[in-house]
Amino acid sequence: MAIAPQRAAENEPILLRSEAGGVVTLTLNRPRQFNALSEAMLDALTAELEAIGRDERARVVVLAGAGDNFCAGHDLKEMRARPDQDWYRALFGKCIAVMRAIAEIPQPVIARVQGIATAAGCQLVAGCDLAVASEEARFATSGINVGLFCSTPAVPLTRAVQLKPAFEMLMTGDFIDAAEAHRLGLVNRVVPRAQLDPAVGELAAKIVAKSPVAVATGKRLFHSIQGQPLAKAYEVAGETMACNMMAEDVGEGIDAFMAKRKPTWRGR
Amino acid sequence: MAIAPQRAAENEPILLRSEAGGVVTLTLNRPRQFNALSEAMLDALTAELEAIGRDERARVVVLAGAGDNFCAGHDLKEMRARPDQDWYRALFGKCIAVMRAIAEIPQPVIARVQGIATAAGCQLVAGCDLAVASEEARFATSGINVGLFCSTPAVPLTRAVQLKPAFEMLMTGDFIDAAEAHRLGLVNRVVPRAQLDPAVGELAAKIVAKSPVAVATGKRLFHSIQGQPLAKAYEVAGETMACNMMAEDVGEGIDAFMAKRKPTWRGR
Amino acid sequence: MAIAPQRAAENEPILLRSEAGGVVTLTLNRPRQFNALSEAMLDALTAELEAIGRDERARVVVLAGAGDNFCAGHDLKEMRARPDQDWYRALFGKCIAVMRAIAEIPQPVIARVQGIATAAGCQLVAGCDLAVASEEARFATSGINVGLFCSTPAVPLTRAVQLKPAFEMLMTGDFIDAAEAHRLGLVNRVVPRAQLDPAVGELAAKIVAKSPVAVATGKRLFHSIQGQPLAKAYEVAGETMACNMMAEDVGEGIDAFMAKRKPTWRGR
Repeated sequence: MAIAPQRAAENEPILLRSEAGGVVTLTLNRPRQFNALSEAMLDALTAELEAIGRDERARVVVLAGAGDNFCAGHDLKEMRARPDQDWYRALFGKCIAVMRAIAEIPQPVIARVQGIATAAGCQLVAGCDLAVASEEARFATSGINVGLFCSTPAVPLTRAVQLKPAFEMLMTGDFIDAAEAHRLGLVNRVVPRAQLDPAVGELAAKIVAKSPVAVATGKRLFHSIQGQPLAKAYEVAGETMACNMMAEDVGEGIDAFMAKRKPTWRGR
Repeated sequence: MAIAPQRAAENEPILLRSEAGGVVTLTLNRPRQFNALSEAMLDALTAELEAIGRDERARVVVLAGAGDNFCAGHDLKEMRARPDQDWYRALFGKCIAVMRAIAEIPQPVIARVQGIATAAGCQLVAGCDLAVASEEARFATSGINVGLFCSTPAVPLTRAVQLKPAFEMLMTGDFIDAAEAHRLGLVNRVVPRAQLDPAVGELAAKIVAKSPVAVATGKRLFHSIQGQPLAKAYEVAGETMACNMMAEDVGEGIDAFMAKRKPTWRGR
Repeated sequence: MAIAPQRAAENEPILLRSEAGGVVTLTLNRPRQFNALSEAMLDALTAELEAIGRDERARVVVLAGAGDNFCAGHDLKEMRARPDQDWYRALFGKCIAVMRAIAEIPQPVIARVQGIATAAGCQLVAGCDLAVASEEARFATSGINVGLFCSTPAVPLTRAVQLKPAFEMLMTGDFIDAAEAHRLGLVNRVVPRAQLDPAVGELAAKIVAKSPVAVATGKRLFHSIQGQPLAKAYEVAGETMACNMMAEDVGEGIDAFMAKRKPTWRGR
C-alpha cells in the first residue's frame, strides 16, 4: 500500500522492459510510490506479459521493482479518489488479469524481491512461478490494517504456503522476513542484497538452457493439474508425456545424455 | 482419548465462558478426564460457538482446556458404553458440527494448547484458524492405537500439514512435540508455558484492533476459496474486495494511514 | 533416467519379493541400470502390488532398490528405441497403473531410498504413503534435462511438497539432498546409511502392530478425502468412524487401553 505522490519520475515509463539472453525483465518503475500498482501499471503489466507470451525468443520473465522495494500493492491514493464499486470491480479485475497472464504465458516468471512486498505486491510474489529474495526483504498482506482484507492476495498465498501461517499473515497484517518466507515456501531462495541479481540470473539461465518445448509443456501441465482429482491429473500428465516424447528435442536430449555431450535444442 | 472417571468437578459446568475486551474464551472443563469431548461437551461447544457467531461484540474466540492438558479427544468410556452405530453416527455428527461452527462463525478462533492434544483434540487444533502452543505441548492422532483410525481428525490435519507427515501421524499414532508441530504448520507459535496466555492475548488483541468488517469478510473469504479452481477463487476474491472497498472503515483506514494516525473503526 | 546396458543380472528376476513379519519388500533389481523402470518392471510392480492388495497376511509394503541407488526413472534406452506415440501412451499408462496400485491397496507403502531417486524414481517416492531416506540420498525430477518434462512425477510431487519448490525442481532438474527433501515433506525420516534398514523396519513394525481394520480403513479414508470439499470430506470421515467403531478390534482396543494392557487384534 503506497501513499506517496502520484507523479512518476520525469520522462520515465511506469513499466520498464529489458531483454538479454532470452530473459525479459519487467521492472515496476514508480519507486517513489513504492511501485504501487495503479490502474495504468496493471494495464501495462498485462499488455507486456501477453506480448511476451507470444514471443518465442523470450524464455524466462523476471518481475522486478525499481529502487529499494519490490511493490507495495495497489495505489491507495488512486483508490480513495474513486469511491465507486464498479470502478473497484474493474480495478481488481485488472489485477486478476495480471495474475492470469503470469500463470498462462508459456514462460516461467521469477519474482525478484527486495525491500517490501505488501498486499498485492505480496500477491505478485505468491503468484509468480518462482521467487528469489534478498535477505532484508519483508512480506505482508497488510490490507487488513486499513480495513481492506487482502482477498485476492489470499488466493495465491493459500496455495503457496500452509493454511495457518497464511491465515496469520492475512489477519494480522504483520511482516514476515525473508528467512520465514523461505521456510514457508513463499520464496525459493534468499541471498544477500548484492547477490540478488546474480542469483536471479543464475536461476533464469538454468531454465533458458532447457528445451523450450519442455519448459512450455511443463508450465502448462503444472498449472493444469492443480486442484484436479488424482486420476484426472495422472491422465492429463500421461498424455502430456506421450506427446512430449514425440518432440525432436527429446530424441536429441536422450542421445546427448547417452553420449555425455551437451544437447542442441531446436525448440520442436 | 480419555479414560478417567466421568464425574465433572463439583458445581462446575463442563464448558466455561469468559469474555474480556472482545475476546471470548471457551474452556473445556473436564480436567480430570483430559477435557474429553463427551456428547454433552460437543453440544455445549456448538451452542456457545453459534451464540458467539451472532454476537457483534465478540471479536475473537480462544479455545482452551482447563488444567494441564488441552484435550484428549472423544470420551472413550462413554463411547464404549454405547455400542450402537446410529449413536456413533450422531456423535461424530455432533463433532463435525463443532468443526463447522469454528469455520463458519465470523470470528477467528485461536486454539490455546498445553499438555496433550490427541485424536479429536488434535482435530480441534488443526481446525482452528490459529493455534498457539506451549513448549511442552504434544500432538497425536492416536485413535489407531485403539483400533479406531482418526478419520475426522484427518480432514483438517491433511489440510493444515503436508501429506506424508500427516499420514505418519495418523498411521503410527506417535506424538510430535510443539517444535515439530510448528515446523509442520499445525501451530503458529510456540512459547514457554508461562508465556502461553500473554502470547494468545497478544495475537487476539492484534485481531481485535482490526476493522470488524475486514475480519469477518476475510474469514469468510479465506474458507470459501479453499479447494476452488484458481479462476473461480480469483472471481470470488475480486468481488469480495470490491464490496469491502465500499465499507466506511476502508475510507477511514486509508485516511488514517495517509495521515499517519490510528483509525477509528465503525464496523461498517 | 538410466542409460546402462539393458541386460539384467544373470538368473535374477527384475523384481525381488521377500516377506517377514507381515512386511513385504519389493526390490527393483536392475542395479546396473539404476533400477530403471522398463516396461517389464512396471508390469511386474503392478502385478505384485495387486497381489499384495489381496493378501490379508501382508500388512505393510516396502519399496526398495537393489544396489547403490533407489531408482533413476524410466528406461531411456528402451524408450528411445520405440519412437511411437501409442507405445509411449501405453508405457506411461503402465507407470500410472503402478501409482494407482500404490494408492489403492489397503497396505501402507514405504519407500526406502538410498542413492538417487530421479524422474519416475522421484515420482515413486512422492507417491508412496511414507518414505525413509539415507543421508546421502538425492532427489531430482530431471526429465527436463533431456527435453522431457516430468509431467507424471509432477502429480504426486505437487501434492507432497509446496508449489514453489516443486516448480523449481521440475524446471531446473536440480538435485535436492535428503535434508532438504525432509524439510519439504518429500520424506518422513533421514538416517545414516547403516540405519536405513533398521529405520524402515521400525516404522513398518509400528504399523504391523496396529489393527488391520484400522489401517485399511485409514488408508482408504486418507486417499478418499484428498481434494474433496470440506463438508463432503467430513461427511465421509464421520460415516467411516461410525463404521470403524463397530469393529471388534475397537472394543478390544478400548478395553485394553483402559486396562493398560496390550490389545489382541482379530482384524475384524
